[in-house]
Amino acid sequence: MNYYSTDFRLGILGGGQLGKMLLYDTRKFDIATFILDPSKEAPAQFGAHQFFQGDLMDYETVYRFGKKVDVLTIEIEGVNLEALDQLQQEGVKVYPAPETLRLIQNKGKQKDFYTSHHIPTAPYVRFTSKADLVAAVNQQTVSVPFVWKSAQFGYDGNGVKVVRSIADLTALPEVECIAETMIPFKNELAVIVARSASGEIKTFPVVEMEFHPEANQVEYVICPARIDATVAEKARAIALTVSEKFNHVGLLAVEMFQTQEDEILVNEVAPRPHNSGHYSIEASYTSQFEQHIRAILDLPLGNTDSKVAGVMVNLVGAEGHTGQVYYEGMNEILAIPGVTPHIYGKRETRPFRKMGHVTIVNSDMNKAREIAQKVKETIKVISQ
Amino acid sequence: MNYYSTDFRLGILGGGQLGKMLLYDTRKFDIATFILDPSKEAPAQFGAHQFFQGDLMDYETVYRFGKKVDVLTIEIEGVNLEALDQLQQEGVKVYPAPETLRLIQNKGKQKDFYTSHHIPTAPYVRFTSKADLVAAVNQQTVSVPFVWKSAQFGYDGNGVKVVRSIADLTALPEVECIAETMIPFKNELAVIVARSASGEIKTFPVVEMEFHPEANQVEYVICPARIDATVAEKARAIALTVSEKFNHVGLLAVEMFQTQEDEILVNEVAPRPHNSGHYSIEASYTSQFEQHIRAILDLPLGNTDSKVAGVMVNLVGAEGHTGQVYYEGMNEILAIPGVTPHIYGKRETRPFRKMGHVTIVNSDMNKAREIAQKVKETIKVISQ
Repeated sequence: MNYYSTDFRLGILGGGQLGKMLLYDTRKFDIATFILDPSKEAPAQFGAHQFFQGDLMDYETVYRFGKKVDVLTIEIEGVNLEALDQLQQEGVKVYPAPETLRLIQNKGKQKDFYTSHHIPTAPYVRFTSKADLVAAVNQQTVSVPFVWKSAQFGYDGNGVKVVRSIADLTALPEVECIAETMIPFKNELAVIVARSASGEIKTFPVVEMEFHPEANQVEYVICPARIDATVAEKARAIALTVSEKFNHVGLLAVEMFQTQEDEILVNEVAPRPHNSGHYSIEASYTSQFEQHIRAILDLPLGNTDSKVAGVMVNLVGAEGHTGQVYYEGMNEILAIPGVTPHIYGKRETRPFRKMGHVTIVNSDMNKAREIAQKVKETIKVISQ
Repeated sequence: MNYYSTDFRLGILGGGQLGKMLLYDTRKFDIATFILDPSKEAPAQFGAHQFFQGDLMDYETVYRFGKKVDVLTIEIEGVNLEALDQLQQEGVKVYPAPETLRLIQNKGKQKDFYTSHHIPTAPYVRFTSKADLVAAVNQQTVSVPFVWKSAQFGYDGNGVKVVRSIADLTALPEVECIAETMIPFKNELAVIVARSASGEIKTFPVVEMEFHPEANQVEYVICPARIDATVAEKARAIALTVSEKFNHVGLLAVEMFQTQEDEILVNEVAPRPHNSGHYSIEASYTSQFEQHIRAILDLPLGNTDSKVAGVMVNLVGAEGHTGQVYYEGMNEILAIPGVTPHIYGKRETRPFRKMGHVTIVNSDMNKAREIAQKVKETIKVISQ
C-alpha cells in the first residue's frame, strides 16, 4: 500500500490531545488524515488534511465520516459502534475493531472478560443500577471501602471514586457500575502493547504511575518503572496475554496493580495511545503515536527501547481557576535541560482539566525524577 | 509574554519542509502560527492556524501578511526585505532582522562580510555579470578549476557549480556571481548557533557532511562529527564569532571546510533551521526547530546535547523519474531499529528534488553510520 503523499486517507474519531499528537506522525509521514470531533475548538483541529465537526455517538455522522477514509481509528472509546460495524462490513479497515471496543467500552464486560480468560484482576461485583448497589451495601454483600466505577465512559478519572463510607454513596450517579475490592498496592504499572494488522507484537517498557490522591489523575509516569526485573517481566507477560485475548490491532495500554505480594492484577485497558505513553515522544526510539500509526497501517513496528530515562508530569487546571488559561512558570521550566512542555491547545482552563503534559528526559533516572518534582512545583495552570 | 493558547500570532515566510517541521513545535506549544507560501500545495499547508498563498518577493503581499502577526520569521531567505524593514519600523518583531538577511541574501556581500570581520573563508572574486567573469578567465586573473556561485538565491545546490574547464563557462547563467578558489578539504562541517532576542547563545554539536558529488546536495549528515576535539572546538569558536558579528536572532547554520591542514574556513551561512540540523529531531534533547522558536520568542534556549548518535540521509528524487512519487523500500527501512523517515509532502518527484529525509539514531555511532548506508541503498524516490 502506498500511504505517503497519495490519495490514501486515514480517519481518526476524536480530536483531543491524543488526536493532535497522532497528527505529528501522520504529518511526518505525509499520510492524509481526517479528524472528526464534536468541538470545533478541538486540539486536533489543526494538522489534519480535513477536520469535521460532529457527534461521535451519532450513527449517521460516524458512518458518513468513515466512508471518506480507507482506514479508521479512534483516540477515544466513546464512539458509535453500530456505525463501525457497518463500515467494517463495507470494507473500511477499522482498528481497533468494534468487537474489541464493545468489550472495553463497558467496564463490567471488561472485568468479566478478564475473569473468563483467567487474567488476574481485582475482585468485583457488577450492578445494573445504583439502587442495586445501594441494596447490596445495605445487605452487606458489598462492604466499604470499595472502588466504584461507572461501567460506561469513565474518562480522566471522572468515572472512578473510592467509596469510604455509606454516606459517600449519595453522591454517586444513577448508572450501571461495578464495585471493586480495594487492593493495597505497591505500585500502579502500565505496559503499552502494539500489535499490527498482520500480527507483529512489541511492548514498550513497563512504566510506573503515581496518582494524585484526590483527582484520581496520573501525576507522574516514570519510564522505566523502578521495580525488580522479575516483576517487570511478569507485568509484561500479563500485558501480552491481555493483548492476545483481545486480538486488538493498534496500541493496547494495559494498566495494572503491583500488590504488596508482588502479584500483578489487571486494572483496565485502553485500545489507543495513552497518557502513560506520552513520555515516549522524547524518550523512546519510536513514540507511541508513531507506533499506533505503524500498527494500524500494518507497517513494521518500531523499536520500543528508550534512548534516555523519561518522567511525565500531567498539567491539569489548578483548583479555583476557570477561564482563559495562563501557564505560570513556563520560562522557569523551559530553562531546565531536558524539559519539554506539551500544551494541548485548550484555551479555557477548569479545575483538574487535562491541559497539557511535560516530559523530563535525562540519562540519569534519579535526576529526571528530581527535575520532574521541580517542574511540578514550578508550573501552574491558572486563569488570567 | 503569554504565547500559549492565546491570541499571540507567529508568522513564517515560506511553507516548505522547514516551515512544516517548525509547525511540529508551534503545535506542541500551541502557538498560533500563520504561514505564507507561493504554492497552495506547500508542505506546511497543514498544521498552521492559517495558511496564505502569495508571493514572498512581493512587497504588498509580505507587508499585509506581516501586519497580521506579532513576531515574523522565515524558513527561506528569498523574501521581500523592504516589506520587512517597514514591518520592523511599525513594531512587528522580525527575526532574523532584514539587515542580517540583506547581507546573507547576496553571497558576494556575505563573503565581503567575512573578509572585513577577519573570519577565515576561501579566497574569491566577485563579478557583477557573467561577461565580467568570462573576461577574467580569458585574462587568466581567474583560473580553472574554481567554484562558481550565483550571488543571489542559491538553494538546494542549484546556485553552485564546479567549473573544471573553460567549456563549463557556457552553461552558467547570466547572473551576478563569485568565483571561489577550490579548497582541497578533509571534511565539510556545520555548526548551528542559536541566539535569543535577549542574547542567550547555544551551539549544537559540530556535524560532518558528505555531499553527493554531482547533485551538490548533502548525502549524510553525521552528529557528532568524527573529528578531533581540538578541530571541533575551533569550528565551534569560529561559528560563535560569525554569530556574534551577524548579531542574528534565531538559528544561524554555519557551514565550514576543514582543510588538509586542519584550518577552518567558513563557506556560507543560513539564518534559519537547516538541513544539517534535521538529525536533532530524533537525536537531540532540543530539536533545531524548537530551538528556533525558543530563540525568536526570547524563551530560554534548550539543551543542545545529543541523547544518541544521529545520521541523516536526504531523500532526493531519483534520476529519470518525474511524476506522482512512490517511496520504494519504505517497509524495509521501517523495519530497522532507530530509523525515522520524514516525508515532506511533495506529491510530484523530480530528479534531485528534496522529497524527505531519514534520520538514523543509535547509541553506537558506527552502527548508525552503517545503517544509514543501508537505508541509502534501500530506499528510492521514484515515480509510479
